[in-house]
Amino acid sequence: MAGAMLIPALADFASANDDWRVFVFSAVDVAILCSLVAAATRGERVPFTPRLGFLLVTSVWLVSAGIGALPLYFGSVHLSFAGAYFESMSGLTTTGSTVISGLDALPPGLLLWRSLLQWLGGIGIIGMAILILPSIRGGGLSLFHMESSDKSEKILPRVNQLAAGLMAAYAALTVLCVMAYSALGMSVFDAVNHAMTTLATGGFSTHDSSMGYFDDNRLLVVSSLFMVLASLPFVVYIRALLPLRFQRWNDPQIPVFLATCAVLSVALAATRHALNATPFDEAFASSAFNLISVITTTGYASEDYTLWSNAATGIFFLAMFLGGCAGSTAGGIKANRLVILFLLVKASARGLFRPHAIRRLRYGYQEVTPELLQTVTLFVLLFFGVLLIGTVVLTLLGLDFMTAFSGSLTALANVGPGFGQIIGPAGNFGKFSDPTLWALSAIMLLGRLEIVTVLVLLFPATWLD
Amino acid sequence: MAGAMLIPALADFASANDDWRVFVFSAVDVAILCSLVAAATRGERVPFTPRLGFLLVTSVWLVSAGIGALPLYFGSVHLSFAGAYFESMSGLTTTGSTVISGLDALPPGLLLWRSLLQWLGGIGIIGMAILILPSIRGGGLSLFHMESSDKSEKILPRVNQLAAGLMAAYAALTVLCVMAYSALGMSVFDAVNHAMTTLATGGFSTHDSSMGYFDDNRLLVVSSLFMVLASLPFVVYIRALLPLRFQRWNDPQIPVFLATCAVLSVALAATRHALNATPFDEAFASSAFNLISVITTTGYASEDYTLWSNAATGIFFLAMFLGGCAGSTAGGIKANRLVILFLLVKASARGLFRPHAIRRLRYGYQEVTPELLQTVTLFVLLFFGVLLIGTVVLTLLGLDFMTAFSGSLTALANVGPGFGQIIGPAGNFGKFSDPTLWALSAIMLLGRLEIVTVLVLLFPATWLD
Repeated sequence: MAGAMLIPALADFASANDDWRVFVFSAVDVAILCSLVAAATRGERVPFTPRLGFLLVTSVWLVSAGIGALPLYFGSVHLSFAGAYFESMSGLTTTGSTVISGLDALPPGLLLWRSLLQWLGGIGIIGMAILILPSIRGGGLSLFHMESSDKSEKILPRVNQLAAGLMAAYAALTVLCVMAYSALGMSVFDAVNHAMTTLATGGFSTHDSSMGYFDDNRLLVVSSLFMVLASLPFVVYIRALLPLRFQRWNDPQIPVFLATCAVLSVALAATRHALNATPFDEAFASSAFNLISVITTTGYASEDYTLWSNAATGIFFLAMFLGGCAGSTAGGIKANRLVILFLLVKASARGLFRPHAIRRLRYGYQEVTPELLQTVTLFVLLFFGVLLIGTVVLTLLGLDFMTAFSGSLTALANVGPGFGQIIGPAGNFGKFSDPTLWALSAIMLLGRLEIVTVLVLLFPATWLD
Repeated sequence: MAGAMLIPALADFASANDDWRVFVFSAVDVAILCSLVAAATRGERVPFTPRLGFLLVTSVWLVSAGIGALPLYFGSVHLSFAGAYFESMSGLTTTGSTVISGLDALPPGLLLWRSLLQWLGGIGIIGMAILILPSIRGGGLSLFHMESSDKSEKILPRVNQLAAGLMAAYAALTVLCVMAYSALGMSVFDAVNHAMTTLATGGFSTHDSSMGYFDDNRLLVVSSLFMVLASLPFVVYIRALLPLRFQRWNDPQIPVFLATCAVLSVALAATRHALNATPFDEAFASSAFNLISVITTTGYASEDYTLWSNAATGIFFLAMFLGGCAGSTAGGIKANRLVILFLLVKASARGLFRPHAIRRLRYGYQEVTPELLQTVTLFVLLFFGVLLIGTVVLTLLGLDFMTAFSGSLTALANVGPGFGQIIGPAGNFGKFSDPTLWALSAIMLLGRLEIVTVLVLLFPATWLD
């Protein structure tokens, strides 16, 4: 992260903005501090236990958000520390909610830093989802069991290989996206920023009016395409580079995810045609863009879609839960879990009539074991539990019900915008009190680390086991 | 039901209201029609299969709501058939949402009929929950397996005994409640009506301003007490009358339910003390009453509690999910499921560190089998699924997001009032279009029959098996 800070430092230095000092000082401070910590803790290795693993993952995100907040706190944007931390956490979790209004007038370094935070957060979560949680397509339950097992040495080479492939795919898609955005008329700076936040399904923009600023339907189509690409399991892109055993062609979440995007986009455009008399072909591009932006948990907007109609708001509400595919940068419940839940419901209905029949659930060519099933159902239950508790906490902090509920949901699913006047697609999170921002930061982290990873730290069994 | 219609007929006849004819004609028509159906289908018995069971339960509720709607449709209140059916379904499912404004001016027969529908619906659901779904404390999955098994003849005597005990307890508590309400100054007519809708945790009132009409804190306390009593598992009341094997003293849902009511009431009164400067002791009675009314899914209100504060609304929002105990007239997710979900989360967290330890979950002195666990998680997942789909459907029918979401929730949990200007505690459902009322009726039925019972009819396996 210290190294990454030098990029916005360079940008600010080139455009003669004083913020470059902030970035350089932050970079130096972080580098020195972390070197000191590394030096002080050198020596005998602590045995790697699951408990340490959980603590580590959560700590890394908490501390990274703190580091990412430094330039935002000391820079020329003048945020409270809670605001800077929120913005940084919103970046690293690829949520995309912002406390900053007046983005268009912000120095390039800070804009670039926000985009970089999302880009780094995006590759971080892919890495975690694919390298650290490989067996648990549904949740975070067996996190780190791989590391703590004796197989870790055997799989290390293939982990390195996979990591390199992922990085390459992520970088290549980002470059492609920069080129596409530039070709459609974006400045190179805007193209780089938006490409980074598109591939991260983050949604930070360099303009207050988000993608609406460019007012170009072709851009909306291209952006939709890249958001969809960023929400597919990234192993898809590197299967050709890797041994056969990593190939996963028969992944039911992909057609389900694509079909969901298509069906809901058509439904949304149809409601606009019916209720707002917008011609269907005209309504389709912006409907698909804004909807895919929400389904993929990116959070760009081209206009305030909550004003279209109540029906449109209902469809966007549903979309906020869905998410992309597992193994991507998208948040939310995710298509793989929706497939498994559907299988569960179907099997349960069938089980009522043939209680003693042996039923094997199949997800692609993988068997859905009872453990996987429990992991998936537990995650979804906790998702709704955190959503409700988060809503109550936010109302206790003074938010109205609509803002609290949609704020809790958008933070937990790492989407970005919520509903209502304050945090809707046309608003931002800048008016919130510090405690509210802390609460939302916590919910974003819970959502990004798939809840269980964080929640497990609260159980006495974790401390004492 | 034809017999029950003679009670309001008598009340209307006594008060010289012409609606008595409507009740008598409805009663005669229903009696004749049902006798004809019975005569036409006499003869060989259809073998009792699970499929028939599911179809039967759902049909009974659908047809009963249709029968209950007759006096409301033909009577002097002038509802559309959708409105009458909604009101009847709201009664039988003990939801308590109403399309009628001007209750105070309604003839006594119709008021009594609404209360009777709730009272009958209440005993109906206790009967179903305890007699038909005895083994599945968490959901509706193994519904009717008892009937279809060869044990049915052996348990029949004890079923009859249990049914008689339940009826007696329900009736005795209702009489006690009538006496308590009368003693506190209610007219006998109001006391009878409110006692019936209290014990059914239904919430229909004879006044537009619900319990607020009486403006008496003592009444709120007594009503809260009876709502709590009506939300305990009814077997508690008849354990002394029955053999030892029915005794269930160690039922964790009871302390959890009681503690939830107590803690949330104190929290709510505290927010009113802090935010509205209402003295705590003054705030407590009305806080506890309105909150317990929502937790027990009764739905009375003494004032528009959504105006208290955002924090209060948040607490009421949470309360709408909770519900009473299994084996009572209350709806919602219910305390037994919440206990089991908590056990699941705790066990999962522990399982992360001792993956191979054998863990037995215990609910009271009962073991939580994997089947029970799946039934509970499936129900809760479907609860949230129906809540979301219901919200989207209601927005597609034109409702604003807040009304659609809280309407879907209040119908599904069988509470009664929702949030917002239209269906909040001070509003009613009278302004909705017919399609909206049909959708809400369907959601109420899904909630009352615990979703799976109805949903299973949509699966091809049900028709073809």
